[in-house]
Amino acid sequence: MPSYYDQYREKQRKIADIYNAIALLHWDKETYLPNKGASFRAQQIATLSGIAHNEFVDSRFGRLLNRLANMTILSEKEMKNIVLTQKDYDKATKFTDEFVKKKSLAVSEAYHSWIEARKANDYEIFAPALQKVIDIIREEAEIIGYTDHPYDACLDNYEAEMTVAILDPFFEGIKNDLKPLVDKISQAKKIDKSFLHKTFPKEAQWELGLEVLTHLGYDFEAGRQDISTHPFTTSFSPQDVRVTTRIDENDFSNMTWSCIHEGGHALYEQGLPVDQYGLPSGQAASLAIHESQSRLWENNVGRSREYWNFFFPKIKERFPKQFKKVKLDNFYRAINTVSPNLIRTEADELHYHLHVLIRYEIEKAILAKEVDAKDLKEMWNAKYEEYLGINPTDDLSGILQDIHWSHGSIGYFPTYSLGSFYAAQIYAAAEKDIPKLSSLLSKGKTKQLLEWLRTNIHKHGRTYNAEELCELVTGEPLNTSYFIDYATKKFEDIYDLNKKEKGGQIDKSTNKEKGGKGKKSKKKKSTGKKKKKKNK
Amino acid sequence: MPSYYDQYREKQRKIADIYNAIALLHWDKETYLPNKGASFRAQQIATLSGIAHNEFVDSRFGRLLNRLANMTILSEKEMKNIVLTQKDYDKATKFTDEFVKKKSLAVSEAYHSWIEARKANDYEIFAPALQKVIDIIREEAEIIGYTDHPYDACLDNYEAEMTVAILDPFFEGIKNDLKPLVDKISQAKKIDKSFLHKTFPKEAQWELGLEVLTHLGYDFEAGRQDISTHPFTTSFSPQDVRVTTRIDENDFSNMTWSCIHEGGHALYEQGLPVDQYGLPSGQAASLAIHESQSRLWENNVGRSREYWNFFFPKIKERFPKQFKKVKLDNFYRAINTVSPNLIRTEADELHYHLHVLIRYEIEKAILAKEVDAKDLKEMWNAKYEEYLGINPTDDLSGILQDIHWSHGSIGYFPTYSLGSFYAAQIYAAAEKDIPKLSSLLSKGKTKQLLEWLRTNIHKHGRTYNAEELCELVTGEPLNTSYFIDYATKKFEDIYDLNKKEKGGQIDKSTNKEKGGKGKKSKKKKSTGKKKKKKNK
Repeated sequence: MPSYYDQYREKQRKIADIYNAIALLHWDKETYLPNKGASFRAQQIATLSGIAHNEFVDSRFGRLLNRLANMTILSEKEMKNIVLTQKDYDKATKFTDEFVKKKSLAVSEAYHSWIEARKANDYEIFAPALQKVIDIIREEAEIIGYTDHPYDACLDNYEAEMTVAILDPFFEGIKNDLKPLVDKISQAKKIDKSFLHKTFPKEAQWELGLEVLTHLGYDFEAGRQDISTHPFTTSFSPQDVRVTTRIDENDFSNMTWSCIHEGGHALYEQGLPVDQYGLPSGQAASLAIHESQSRLWENNVGRSREYWNFFFPKIKERFPKQFKKVKLDNFYRAINTVSPNLIRTEADELHYHLHVLIRYEIEKAILAKEVDAKDLKEMWNAKYEEYLGINPTDDLSGILQDIHWSHGSIGYFPTYSLGSFYAAQIYAAAEKDIPKLSSLLSKGKTKQLLEWLRTNIHKHGRTYNAEELCELVTGEPLNTSYFIDYATKKFEDIYDLNKKEKGGQIDKSTNKEKGGKGKKSKKKKSTGKKKKKKNK
Repeated sequence: MPSYYDQYREKQRKIADIYNAIALLHWDKETYLPNKGASFRAQQIATLSGIAHNEFVDSRFGRLLNRLANMTILSEKEMKNIVLTQKDYDKATKFTDEFVKKKSLAVSEAYHSWIEARKANDYEIFAPALQKVIDIIREEAEIIGYTDHPYDACLDNYEAEMTVAILDPFFEGIKNDLKPLVDKISQAKKIDKSFLHKTFPKEAQWELGLEVLTHLGYDFEAGRQDISTHPFTTSFSPQDVRVTTRIDENDFSNMTWSCIHEGGHALYEQGLPVDQYGLPSGQAASLAIHESQSRLWENNVGRSREYWNFFFPKIKERFPKQFKKVKLDNFYRAINTVSPNLIRTEADELHYHLHVLIRYEIEKAILAKEVDAKDLKEMWNAKYEEYLGINPTDDLSGILQDIHWSHGSIGYFPTYSLGSFYAAQIYAAAEKDIPKLSSLLSKGKTKQLLEWLRTNIHKHGRTYNAEELCELVTGEPLNTSYFIDYATKKFEDIYDLNKKEKGGQIDKSTNKEKGGKGKKSKKKKSTGKKKKKKNK
């Protein structure tokens, strides 16, 4: 008879096999599924999801976990797996079948209603179904339980141990420190990026994508790239991690940084320990840490001057006509332009977090029962006016843009911003640990950084949660000043902000000139720059 | 509470969902799986197979089936589903877990040993593992049970109700009626087909494949074509039926008829009744009927003069240089050349059945315990000498060529030949039913034939077994004279056999000249031609 831990391991492996089959059903749905196959595919996914869930909530498995939790012969890592699985188990078994069905029905309705609302560009169509989802999520939060704020229960679904108590000051930091920088940039001289919108043939872009991924260290023997409407990364084991991309012939940026972003996710999944397949120690730490890996490669590396110092000549070879007259410095500035827009997924590196901030505040208010579906559009538009200075022209560019709520995903958005901030902090630690990292990247050497991430982040799986991992790797909990410092330094340089302030030249094309922001921004910058490695 | 029949239907749907997910795992394995992903993929397939099996052999399901079998309110079709499922259930529950594991282990070993033996081109490496498989298949036959011959138990696994009593005269017919025709052709003047081996660029062949499939009526909204090493058809529902192909730039035939063959399989799957998903009435009737659909399109249509009367101008447009000087008649003859070779999968329309005949005789002898693994190679080679007049040059071209035995598939091969013979008989019925079918095909009109097959074959699913369906559609059980007549008429014309006999000109390049065959062949032909619609 196998040991209790082996029985646990075998059960987890079996469940992982089912979930990985489901992941393939999804991957295929997004890449190759013929139109008419959609309906049976949805049914097949639902069936397998039900089987996986039932395998997991099996009361015999609960008893096995209890037995293991009281055993003293397990290693520390083994015990951590048991503890994490037990937490998952306790949460999964809290819900009655009735509740699960009710939620599933509400979410399914909401998704279809969201699709209809988008077709009609009319939030009112979506609002009633969204209200049902909101009611259920509020109920779910009560079932899960929380200490301080009901939103904590939602957050924990996507980011273990994340709470309003941690996120309030985090987003406060974004408001206080990032918004002034963004405002200042809005008054700076616009950067020309028109050459990124010439014609870039699909085939050549596709080849570039493969070259970029290979260069980052993505293993094509353990993965592949395909085309899909929305780029994503999925994994069926650390030895089969797939990315997708999309190509816009008139936009060089669209595919390029999407490739690097998904490549970052994929490098993480390929780096998870193969022998821990199916166990928490073989899974990604959290959504925020996942996003930290994609953002680190996309932004800290992939939008750095160093990286393009090496790679720009390569794309000049690939697109000689398009980049003939473009200098590295102009290219670097063009790929880092900052300007407000209405769509989160199209936002630049800085505005992105204002989009997330808005969603955080709205979701928190929803869970606190301060707002209901019928008033959400008004709230949404007001916050876009307040934080980005722009007003959604219609619902599609406004409250109907994200799929998340229609899926019942409330509490997910914050992980996006957390990812970038963890990325900046982790990257700063890498810079300390790896001698001359910047110089290595200038020579196209990314291997050292990947190895460092493998050792410090990837190999741990989910053994540590995001905050534990952050502290383990960087010596302190999440500290927003790393990102603020990185951003300030980078964009002051790119937008020549110090010079600008002296001259006082303001581009007339921007309508975002507001009094006093320049000064505030400067103040932040001067302190921020020295605050590295300090708690906020 | 749902009705008992609805409970049954729901259970069957659930099991079908799992098997269709497994089919996707397989499809992906053959098309897009990265190298390193193979090991976890095998594990995921095994896990889901185990789950599907356990869902099916669940004793509660057995009791439900028993209850349904005794109900008098079911329709005839519903009752047929219950009867067929009960037969499957009874068979599946006959095996102990121990036996299933033992077989799975033996098969797994045999497959690896077959791979090793192929690498070394040495049957001796495979023989011991094959003997274990043989022992287990013999044991399995005893567990399943049979009335006359233990091989019947094996046959029934692949072709319901098929027995030695039916197949002995069937293969006797092949020996008596087909072999003389083949021998006669071997003495005829060789046909030039060198123009089929010019260079045909991959992209152009791929496009041709899509055109051919579309022309046959394959619905690309409910399927797709991809590349794989070995062409195959798979289905995840009637609304997602996929084919694969391979392309050899130096061989026009390789892809073209493989496309049509798989297209025939796929048209069948796309024609199964969607509302019977998961039930026997929604499944293909049998392997032989499946093969009848692929062969009917590949050979009776796809190698006919009529079909190419319409389609040859199209390929001339696509490959103007390659076919510039080729006339339709030469093309038609070239794609129908007959000559013996060692590899079953590369055999022509006639020799193919001699390859199958050999395997039938060997498998029957194995089950009758007349031969064991150690003596199989000798038996194999002797039969190739006897029936095809050629001797395998090595084991790879001989007894190691097929994967089937290494998979534990004994009893499968006969379905291949049955398919072609059913195809000829079904096609003859179609010719009777569809006015001017031949003329329609000459004009490129395939729709009437497809509709006829949909109505007469596809829509029935598995409600009737092959023999029942054959009788329903053609008015009589399988009658080999349809194929013999079709073949005799076709190849006498192509090889100008009557003329040849008169002239007595024999191509010196053939080494198959044997006395007396010509006369024997002529005798067969003259009787065969008038024997349409008669029982053998």
